[in-house]
Amino acid sequence: MNENHSSKKSGKQFVPHKKTTISPNVSGSERFGKPVRTKNTDSKPKPVREISTTKQQRIRQPKEIRRTPVRIIPLGGLNEIGKNMTVFECSNDIFILDCGLAFPDADMPGVDIVIPDFTYVERNADKIRGIVITHGHEDHIGGLAYLLKKINVPVYATRLTIGLIEGKLKEQGILNQVNLNVVSPRKTVKMGCMAVEFIKVNHSIPDAVGMAIHTPAGIIVHTGDFKVDFSPIDGEIIDLARFGELGSKGVLALMADSTNAERAGYTHSERTVGESFERLFQKGEGKRIIIATFSSNIHRIQQIINCAVRYSRKVAIFGRSMVNVINTAIELGYLDVPDNILIDIESMNQYKNEQIVIITTGSQGEAMSALTRMAMNDHRDVTITPMDFIIISATPIPGNEKFVTRVVNQLMKLGAEVVYEAMYEVHVSGHACQEELKLMQALTKPKFFIPVHGEYKHLQKHAVLVSQMGMPKENIIIAEIGNVIETDGFTMKVVSQVPSGRVLVDGLGVGDVGSIVLRDRRHLAQDGLIIIVIGIEKSVNKIVSGPEIISRGFVYVRENEGLFVDAKNVLKHTIARCSYAEMREWNTLKGKLRDAVSEYIYQKTKRSPMILPIIMEV
Amino acid sequence: MNENHSSKKSGKQFVPHKKTTISPNVSGSERFGKPVRTKNTDSKPKPVREISTTKQQRIRQPKEIRRTPVRIIPLGGLNEIGKNMTVFECSNDIFILDCGLAFPDADMPGVDIVIPDFTYVERNADKIRGIVITHGHEDHIGGLAYLLKKINVPVYATRLTIGLIEGKLKEQGILNQVNLNVVSPRKTVKMGCMAVEFIKVNHSIPDAVGMAIHTPAGIIVHTGDFKVDFSPIDGEIIDLARFGELGSKGVLALMADSTNAERAGYTHSERTVGESFERLFQKGEGKRIIIATFSSNIHRIQQIINCAVRYSRKVAIFGRSMVNVINTAIELGYLDVPDNILIDIESMNQYKNEQIVIITTGSQGEAMSALTRMAMNDHRDVTITPMDFIIISATPIPGNEKFVTRVVNQLMKLGAEVVYEAMYEVHVSGHACQEELKLMQALTKPKFFIPVHGEYKHLQKHAVLVSQMGMPKENIIIAEIGNVIETDGFTMKVVSQVPSGRVLVDGLGVGDVGSIVLRDRRHLAQDGLIIIVIGIEKSVNKIVSGPEIISRGFVYVRENEGLFVDAKNVLKHTIARCSYAEMREWNTLKGKLRDAVSEYIYQKTKRSPMILPIIMEV
Repeated sequence: MNENHSSKKSGKQFVPHKKTTISPNVSGSERFGKPVRTKNTDSKPKPVREISTTKQQRIRQPKEIRRTPVRIIPLGGLNEIGKNMTVFECSNDIFILDCGLAFPDADMPGVDIVIPDFTYVERNADKIRGIVITHGHEDHIGGLAYLLKKINVPVYATRLTIGLIEGKLKEQGILNQVNLNVVSPRKTVKMGCMAVEFIKVNHSIPDAVGMAIHTPAGIIVHTGDFKVDFSPIDGEIIDLARFGELGSKGVLALMADSTNAERAGYTHSERTVGESFERLFQKGEGKRIIIATFSSNIHRIQQIINCAVRYSRKVAIFGRSMVNVINTAIELGYLDVPDNILIDIESMNQYKNEQIVIITTGSQGEAMSALTRMAMNDHRDVTITPMDFIIISATPIPGNEKFVTRVVNQLMKLGAEVVYEAMYEVHVSGHACQEELKLMQALTKPKFFIPVHGEYKHLQKHAVLVSQMGMPKENIIIAEIGNVIETDGFTMKVVSQVPSGRVLVDGLGVGDVGSIVLRDRRHLAQDGLIIIVIGIEKSVNKIVSGPEIISRGFVYVRENEGLFVDAKNVLKHTIARCSYAEMREWNTLKGKLRDAVSEYIYQKTKRSPMILPIIMEV
Repeated sequence: MNENHSSKKSGKQFVPHKKTTISPNVSGSERFGKPVRTKNTDSKPKPVREISTTKQQRIRQPKEIRRTPVRIIPLGGLNEIGKNMTVFECSNDIFILDCGLAFPDADMPGVDIVIPDFTYVERNADKIRGIVITHGHEDHIGGLAYLLKKINVPVYATRLTIGLIEGKLKEQGILNQVNLNVVSPRKTVKMGCMAVEFIKVNHSIPDAVGMAIHTPAGIIVHTGDFKVDFSPIDGEIIDLARFGELGSKGVLALMADSTNAERAGYTHSERTVGESFERLFQKGEGKRIIIATFSSNIHRIQQIINCAVRYSRKVAIFGRSMVNVINTAIELGYLDVPDNILIDIESMNQYKNEQIVIITTGSQGEAMSALTRMAMNDHRDVTITPMDFIIISATPIPGNEKFVTRVVNQLMKLGAEVVYEAMYEVHVSGHACQEELKLMQALTKPKFFIPVHGEYKHLQKHAVLVSQMGMPKENIIIAEIGNVIETDGFTMKVVSQVPSGRVLVDGLGVGDVGSIVLRDRRHLAQDGLIIIVIGIEKSVNKIVSGPEIISRGFVYVRENEGLFVDAKNVLKHTIARCSYAEMREWNTLKGKLRDAVSEYIYQKTKRSPMILPIIMEV
């Protein structure tokens, strides 16, 4: 971890192609960001051009307005939540922005995580100059270890982000092989003919940045995940000034976080959660306080620790990821923990309930998390009683609602008081709402806009928002992963397509579970399985064993023996009617057996288990 | 459907044991509903008793205060959403209130619906006088057909509810065998020594009622699902006066809907949705309007039809359940549809987009619903285009969020405008919020309270609400299904337990899928299946066929042939090391084969597929 690269440029932005002073033709988009592109960023201010001037220019200099094209290739994070990854390409240079994972949907049973399809970057491995990471959340770094195993290029990120990446690479046993570089906000990293400038943003994890990508075609701003917090816990407000400065100089395209594009107004400051904690610590007086939250939300953990200090409580940390992240954060100075506040789980019993705060994982009701095990009365060190005051400081991620509810119900049944509603404001989002999104547009005044990070409905809402601010619809691109979006500083459009999609990780297997395996898993889950086995002595073409029927996940066998006896008779009947030729064609025979049993079973039960005929050659 | 029974009693409540004029001891609960229970309902008002008087009474008349006990046995709807069912029992008489279904959780793959365990009512079939139903939602009538197949007793419900039940029984082919009776609000049905009075309530389906159960021990009020709507579409406001009158006469226990107990304030009137429709019909001018909602929400459908009339649009109905319910509602006079408003799907193409409203199922993103098929571009009659304006007039039921989102995204991708946010108020709840729940308490002034219809957190919240109104905690019972709650008009407590739980319906099978089958299905879904087959000639104790390995849902086989070759070698090795005795003990042999393959596979893949060794005797 060395702050090597480009640090001499500190504070100065990289201005590519300074000689390019020509105003691009902006027919239809004049209202948007015009002052920028029509003047040289180094020259003294010029009077605002009249449209007539622009028209004259267009006539005079038709050839010179196009610049070296830049290609933006999103490989994840569009039309989905998670696995954010974008490729930027110009001439012979490529760099990658973020490499995240997504969590599997309910229709992907057994899958652990989902990562982007790396085909395109693998094919162009020799051009890749590096990877920049906006922040340390799983949906931005969770695919990195898998990518680095295939293409080992330098990684650039802020200090905490690098710290969290180190943890991941260590787990995968590749930490020593990777070149990790710490970059501070306002610093710039050179990526061949492009340069990436880090810009401080607020988010639900410290040290998050957006990026200004200085390219020969112009400046592309990528916000990463962001919100605007005027009272952040670490005192560092999003660098609105720099976004504004870039806007003044001229931003070719903005790519902005769409997660909360459906929500009106402003996202509340993280500090409001601290104020809720203050009230809740009073409410929970005399009881043990247990707070579940995201391990990566260091600022929230800081606020819990601050409350613990004020209310003379000790803090115990539960859950592997919580322990890991807190250790990293303390080590790197992102958490300020006074001496003698943290206690070991083992020494908890030396304290009374009212002297303890437990910070734990499990805010999403994850099956194996500490909080869930406490709720199920299955935790080695913690027994929940009416003397517990429990705060779930998170909102269920879509799909997790039922898991969280189950944990809440269980904790309440054990007598604990559980706070989880929005009314207490025990959670705020890390993403910008509509007014903040508008603020980002107003500051950067981009010519083109690509909404990113969100499902289609979020991208669409974000596009509408921006178009209502005056951006011409043709300057907004709602892209799909795999799209190659090309811009020459003048136009921007989708010009082609590269391989993209989702790669499923199950255990050690990366990509060995595909649509057929998933289809089979879903089928097996739906109605279970019936296996038919017969042994045939091929030389005499005669059945010497079976038919046997075995089932799993289909029906309670002991109470349905009649059904299986009948099915066996159906099989025998079917075999008896097979011709000598049919008996030799095992695929045909298998098909006949499958159909016969399938039909019989459906007629009797209206179910369609998977039917698997096996013929053994004896 | 005849309005036979008890109609002569119209408007008069059944007062059991009028001679019982003794005040029960109400130590600790004096504040709550005292005026009622301390006076004979027929006598003139008496002055409020002093506590000393009560104490004297307790000393003077210790024997006379207990009445014939009544037992309340919830068999569903507590600590869960759905499958509402309660048994009321007194002396030799039993009746059942509601018999609903629940929808399966994600951990019950392949299960169609979940119904209550009927063991207790089957065992006491001879005592059952009838079934009363509060309203026609699935979670109140969906289990009825299964129950009636086991015990055929008369069913009593309001007119629309009976109409909807008829539809269900027809599907199951038992309509002709069942005795269905229409009962109007304020009418009473005799159930042996008990009598059940129907009381109009508001809900998201017309003709919903609560019940006043007049028993020898006192009056028990069950609200059913309810809300308070002062401007209902059919003009019939919940019969607050009757609840109040009962409260004045004396209510022993209240059982009230807890679904929205977490929500502050009042639930909005259904009419607010109509106002939103009005605005949205203007917004959607020139486009085809498609509205998805719950088929049972007749009042909402009425409001859509009213808008269609005002905006000169024709209405087409999509989705089997939507067609069925609307037909029943029109037939019974619950929907007022002017002539020539409804059009066939086939004749839609005779109209322009702006002349059409489609009402459809699919508001929950259900896989096979009409709206989902439209979104997936897979509907025979409807192709979604940018000329469609789509309103999803519902809130996702917990667990369905992702399905609904997927449909919204798809519809938007096809260019349609989709309205689904809360901001447009295109849906209101059918359940009472906190202020309405308080109103019900204030009107009925019960001595005891049993929160019903909800998960534990809802019941708990409801209990806290009521205790904050002054009800002593010991008079509130948060029960579980299967609890036998007994009351003699003096005390109320859980005295014993009867069989209860969930019975899973999968295809034609009722109860043949249990925990083992589900465990296997989940295991199969998680990591798939590996089958090992060997043929042994038993007489010589020798392997004559195999070992063969077949897998499904585990890994993409073609790309992992090495893994299977190696696994086969592991098997051969294991067999080779088996002693002669071990080869004869097939269960031991199977165990050894399973363990060997399992260990090898886990080590190579970190996965644990189900391993199924099959030994064929040749």
